[in-house]
Amino acid sequence: MKDVGVLLSGCGVYDGTEIHEAVITLLALDRKGARVICMAPDTSQHHVVNHLTGQPTEENRNVLVESARIARGEITDIKDIRASRIAALILPGGFGTAKNLSDFAIKGKEAEVHPEVHRLITEMADSEKPIGAMCISPAILAKVLEARNPRVTIGNDLGTAEAIEAMGCRHTVCEVDEIQVDSANKLVTTPAYMIGPSISEVAEGIEKLVEKVLEMA
Amino acid sequence: MKDVGVLLSGCGVYDGTEIHEAVITLLALDRKGARVICMAPDTSQHHVVNHLTGQPTEENRNVLVESARIARGEITDIKDIRASRIAALILPGGFGTAKNLSDFAIKGKEAEVHPEVHRLITEMADSEKPIGAMCISPAILAKVLEARNPRVTIGNDLGTAEAIEAMGCRHTVCEVDEIQVDSANKLVTTPAYMIGPSISEVAEGIEKLVEKVLEMA
Repeated sequence: MKDVGVLLSGCGVYDGTEIHEAVITLLALDRKGARVICMAPDTSQHHVVNHLTGQPTEENRNVLVESARIARGEITDIKDIRASRIAALILPGGFGTAKNLSDFAIKGKEAEVHPEVHRLITEMADSEKPIGAMCISPAILAKVLEARNPRVTIGNDLGTAEAIEAMGCRHTVCEVDEIQVDSANKLVTTPAYMIGPSISEVAEGIEKLVEKVLEMA
Repeated sequence: MKDVGVLLSGCGVYDGTEIHEAVITLLALDRKGARVICMAPDTSQHHVVNHLTGQPTEENRNVLVESARIARGEITDIKDIRASRIAALILPGGFGTAKNLSDFAIKGKEAEVHPEVHRLITEMADSEKPIGAMCISPAILAKVLEARNPRVTIGNDLGTAEAIEAMGCRHTVCEVDEIQVDSANKLVTTPAYMIGPSISEVAEGIEKLVEKVLEMA
């Protein structure tokens, strides 16, 4: 049984992890016999968004505490996870990736990545262990691994693709139900809700991603 | 294409909707070609639980606003939904069902059900339209429909089953990957995380529930 890390960034598409993408990932991993280790950084959210109105609120929420909702309480602070502990790492999407795990949503190609996220992704790449990333999460891989010239997809959004290429990476347009594989760097990416629109189309791409990541692990 | 209502109660197993159950329901419905109408009551949560520690916090959150996280913003106040609008109704579980949609977690067989939830479930039964309920949600059906002597399952928890039978209903022990069907009342129930333990076992029962509900719709 392989242990696979799932890196969360809160709970909700507009200020945290995209919930459907996370749950579909957990289900696909469990169905393939992998053991899941959910993790998140213990840090404040960039902000809180009312998902009914789409407007920011005055609340403060913590990324690890909110991510625990998706993990049913079974979650670890990412600072306690080394690459040696897991066979593979998967990043679901959602704005939390670009607001909490990094500031890509604000700074684009000048983004900085949370130090523990940066550390774990670097360790995974150094250990030649596979990483899967969906939706906007490939932007984090592009930033952390820019020196390795990775190839990723975030779907077909040209502005986002340009920001990723500006970090020195390569971007490939990809359909929602397909995956992009960078064999040299062991990266598997899929657009998920960067394209959508339906949960079943998103699930097709995520299931392929999980299968490929486990095959490479 | 059938319109199916999905009734949410917040976002997180300990104070709202059980997230995995909700997402698996949405995915199964979409894969079967149903159109989903997510809904929740516009009311305060009974309380907010920190899902990392399991302890209540001092925060206030709104059931409709938090449910919108699971629905990616596409959600309707239950007060605006009549039974004539939908072909079937499904209630995922989570403590929100027993704390926000009713007070079953506090009062057991003396529970009261939120008036709009009570109204919609009664309308569905009067219209002979199917209702699916999982985890602890069948307790709401038992309460609202007690005069119809419904048969439901909440799995194998004897204390909860006793409280349900004390409302004048019938309870059947059921495995996590199976469903209980009350054909006369058009009710389909499955234990989900009342038994668990794994997300893929839970998904098996939920997928059977969705298929049966759509068949009856």
